[in-house]
Formats: sequence, structure tokens, C-alpha cells
Amino acid sequence: MAVDYKQDLIDAVKRIDTYVYQTPVLTSSLMNSLTGAQLYFKCENFQKMGAFKMRGAVNAILQLTASQKEAGVVTHSSGNFAQAISLAARNLGIKAYIVMPSNAPKIKIEAVKTYGGHIILSEPTLASREAEAEKIVQKNGATFIHPSNDYNVILGQGTAAYELLQKQPDLDCITTPVGGGGLIGGSCIAAHFFGNNCITIGAEPATMDDAKRSLQAGEIQFNNGGVTVADGLRTHLGDLNFPIIKQFVDDILLVEEQQIIEAMKLIWQYMKIVVEPSSAVPLAAILANPGIFKNKKVGVIISGGNVDLTNLPF
Amino acid sequence: MAVDYKQDLIDAVKRIDTYVYQTPVLTSSLMNSLTGAQLYFKCENFQKMGAFKMRGAVNAILQLTASQKEAGVVTHSSGNFAQAISLAARNLGIKAYIVMPSNAPKIKIEAVKTYGGHIILSEPTLASREAEAEKIVQKNGATFIHPSNDYNVILGQGTAAYELLQKQPDLDCITTPVGGGGLIGGSCIAAHFFGNNCITIGAEPATMDDAKRSLQAGEIQFNNGGVTVADGLRTHLGDLNFPIIKQFVDDILLVEEQQIIEAMKLIWQYMKIVVEPSSAVPLAAILANPGIFKNKKVGVIISGGNVDLTNLPF
Repeated sequence: MAVDYKQDLIDAVKRIDTYVYQTPVLTSSLMNSLTGAQLYFKCENFQKMGAFKMRGAVNAILQLTASQKEAGVVTHSSGNFAQAISLAARNLGIKAYIVMPSNAPKIKIEAVKTYGGHIILSEPTLASREAEAEKIVQKNGATFIHPSNDYNVILGQGTAAYELLQKQPDLDCITTPVGGGGLIGGSCIAAHFFGNNCITIGAEPATMDDAKRSLQAGEIQFNNGGVTVADGLRTHLGDLNFPIIKQFVDDILLVEEQQIIEAMKLIWQYMKIVVEPSSAVPLAAILANPGIFKNKKVGVIISGGNVDLTNLPF
Repeated sequence: MAVDYKQDLIDAVKRIDTYVYQTPVLTSSLMNSLTGAQLYFKCENFQKMGAFKMRGAVNAILQLTASQKEAGVVTHSSGNFAQAISLAARNLGIKAYIVMPSNAPKIKIEAVKTYGGHIILSEPTLASREAEAEKIVQKNGATFIHPSNDYNVILGQGTAAYELLQKQPDLDCITTPVGGGGLIGGSCIAAHFFGNNCITIGAEPATMDDAKRSLQAGEIQFNNGGVTVADGLRTHLGDLNFPIIKQFVDDILLVEEQQIIEAMKLIWQYMKIVVEPSSAVPLAAILANPGIFKNKKVGVIISGGNVDLTNLPF
């Protein structure tokens, strides 16, 4: 049976409605004059636990059966999805197991604990993470939820762009950062089915250009050990979100590290909101590509605001 | 003729309406559970030029006669009022002269230039500032506008609390930082005349406790060379705002420097908004005095968000 993206997204919007915030859309005349575009910032930094990831986590957990809920959920993440699953599970009265690498920053481990997640430390490799998560599945019967390569997670993340389009239906374009592909996967479904000729453009660090190369090659490519200040984007696309991205995303733009830091500082300084480096990647791409965005109405998904205040890049 | 505070504030609200933003009111369940109160943050960090000072500047300039407007305005300030007068004057097509101390941070001088203010540097003493401003009055016929001790400025600043009460009429209390007395002077008028038994409580750094001592002594007291991270509050009350404060303000609470820094960090970290240290002083007072605020609905005026991002106190 063919997947009905449009209906599935509507269902997700209704399903998670009371469990997430309808975050505000901010505008800034200064940002508009800097970019020559009209920008509409969908502020998921104001979302519960501080990032859009809450949407996908809630949407995935809400679709478990009663017996699955009884056994709990498990994921591996050292970032926002770890906190999202922890909080979403707690709010729904479900146990959450979070596999985190033993070298994860203490501040992130503490955040997961605050939200009630049960932490299992693994070696800092993907293989070890996956093995530890699999053990929990086997031993406790918990359901594994992938941070980005899960259809219900993708749909949940797409609800932010859906809300943005409800508020601003005439957007020419929606831009998002690209990491694991969950956010852009959901956003491009929203833009395609609920926009009015609204395209989707992704933005990623030049040092983590797997999505750009994947789109060019027509199959998933991987990163080669680069580093980026945009810590939420240090991952690659998955086999569930890549086909969606291939179908509905127009382009992926690359930005340099210094451009990310400058865009982040601009947002903090002139919009007076706290955003994490990943959130600044789309604005960096807009600033670097005036030819693409000039005189366009552009939605910008501000992905989150969880940043270590004692360790800023500026 | 007796002053009609109530009507004058209504007139100010109408006068400045199209020249300032009606800033949002944010709430935070985390802040509520930390304080045991219900807090309503009136976010003047999102105001034009990044602070409530825009309101008073606009209200004062709009009441000049045509010939006064022709000759321009002058003020002395190294902080937000310098930017506010510059931007308000520019938006109204009027010339603004800003006397700034020669040791003012370059970032503040640049900000005033950005908004089109004409800068005159003075020696870093109050006497020199005042003398330079007086020279401009004499030479150019410009009208002097004091940053806080001016009735039209006081009324303009009070429009933020008025808007807050329109949105949340059942507040038990409004809290503001106390520096020169303009913000609390206007806010206590709003609370008294437009609240429903809403009192006003000020908060100031313990190292700059002139307002607390002034209220106790019944006459204006001065600071004795203390230092504070809350750079907007390094000044004293004036003869025009003090009588208003004496009449309508319930109490002034003092907070320590470390409490200000911690409150500021809490706001950044959990509310994801950029606020300057002065803005965190009321929250610091609320956290330090649960007996006063517990179970109360408390308005908090977030005064501004202009902070040097490369020089944070945490």
C-alpha cells in the first residue's frame, strides 16, 4: 500500500498537539535587510526540552501498543534526542533507556537524568552504541526508536514546518539544518503537501557534506571524520528518510564553520534568542547565497537552543 | 493643577503605539517551579534597539514642538538610552546629539553610530557630561532629554507594564530593576492605576542600594562607588521620579552579584532568551525571597538584551 504522506502528517499534527508547544514564529527587520529576503523563524528553541526533537519523540511513543508502552523505549543519542525521548516518555508514564557514549559531556548526561531517562553508557563508537541498545531490546523488550531514521519520528519533526505554513502560507521556501535527515525529511513533506509552491532547501556544514553528496550520487554517502561546531549535525542520512529527501528536497547548501559562528552570533545579538550552532546553519546558507533567496519569503527552522553557555564559540 | 497620572499614561500608550513593538509576554513552567510563583516575563529585550528605553525616548521626542524638533535633541548616556534616543530621533526625522564618556566601550559607541546618533565625547565624569550636553543646548538650541528623570520618559517606560497588565490583568505584583528610576516610576503608575490591587516591587544590586536607602530615608540617597555586573543600574534616582516611587512603590529588594549572574544564566539556559544582567535582577530577588512571592502572580519586566556576547559573566 502506498504511503499517504499528507494524511500521515495531518495525523501526526493532531496526535502530538497537546504534548508539544506551538512555538512562536519570529521576524526581524534587521535580518531581512541583511539577507534581502523576508525571513520567518520557527523557534523550536522554545520547544519543550529546547529542541524540535520533542515532536518526533512524542509522535513515535504515542503509536506504541499498550504492551510496548509497558516495556519502555530505548534509543542511542548523546544529544537532543536523548533528552526528547526521556521527557516524552516521562510525560507519557513510560520508561526510557538512553544509551550514551562514555565520553559524552557531563552536562548532557545530567540533562537526560533531569528528564528521568535511564542511562546506559557505551563505548564511544556507533557499533558499541547499537550493541548496547540491542541488549536492552532483547533483555527488557523495550522498543528501539532511532533519532532520525524512523518514519514516525520524521513525521513528528515535520509538524514544525506544518505549523509554520499554517501561520505563513505564502512561503516560497523552507530551510532547515541537515543532520540525520529527520527534520528535513518531515519538513519537505510539509512544504510539498501544505505549501503553495513552497520548496525545501537544506543546509549543512561543509565538513559534514554527506547529504549534499548523497543527493548528487542518488544514494546515501557518509562523512569522513570531519569536525563541526554544529554538534547536532554530526551524523548521516538513513534509508527511511533519504528516499523522502530525494523526492521532495530541492537542494542542499554547504556553509563554512566561520559562517555558522557568525550567523549564530547575529541571531543571538539581534534577535535576542539563544540558539545552538546547528540552528544557525540555514541562516548562514541564506547569507552566503543571496542570489537564491533575495526577495523570497523564507521559513527558517530554528532547531534548538541547548548550548553550553560556558563554552560559546564567540 | 494636579498631575493626572492615569490619563497621562493612557495618552503615552496611544502616542507611542506605532513607534514601538508590543513585546511578547513569556511564561516558563520551570521558572514557576523554581520560584513557587507564577511569573509573566514582559520581554523588552525584543523591543526596538533591544530595551524598554525606546518607549521613553519616543514618548519624549513626540511631544516636542515643531521648532524644538527642528533643533534636535541631546542626552548624555553610555548605555541603552543613548541608542534609544538615536533610533527614536532617526525614525522621527530629528537630529540627536549623544554625549558619551571618552572611556565608553567601543561596542556602545558603534551602536549609537549605527542608529545615526551624533556623538560628542566628554570626560568620564558626570560634571563633564552635563557640561557638554549644556553646550549643545546653548549652541544648537537642542532640547535636553534626561535618561530617567523626565516625566515623559517615565510615562513612556510605564507603557511596558501597562501592556503587561492588559494581557494579564490579575497580577498581584510587578517587579522591575531599579537604576535611574524611570522604569520603576512608570511601572508603579501602571500597576497602581491599571492593576487590580497590583503592587510594585523594585530590585537593585546590593552594591547600588541608593533606591532602597532613599525609600527608607524619604529623600534621595546616592551610591558610594560600588560596582555591579548590572551595568544599566549604576545610577541614582531623580527629583521627578522619586516622588512617584515614594508614593506607589511597595518595597525595594537587594540582591548580591552572584545571585544576579545565576538568575541571568537561568533565563538564558531555560527560557532561551538573551537578556542583559540588569534584566535578571528582579528574578534574582524573587528567587531570594520566596516568602514574598510564593503562589503570587508576578509580572517581571525584562528590561533589555544588549549584552557583549564576547564578555559574559558565566
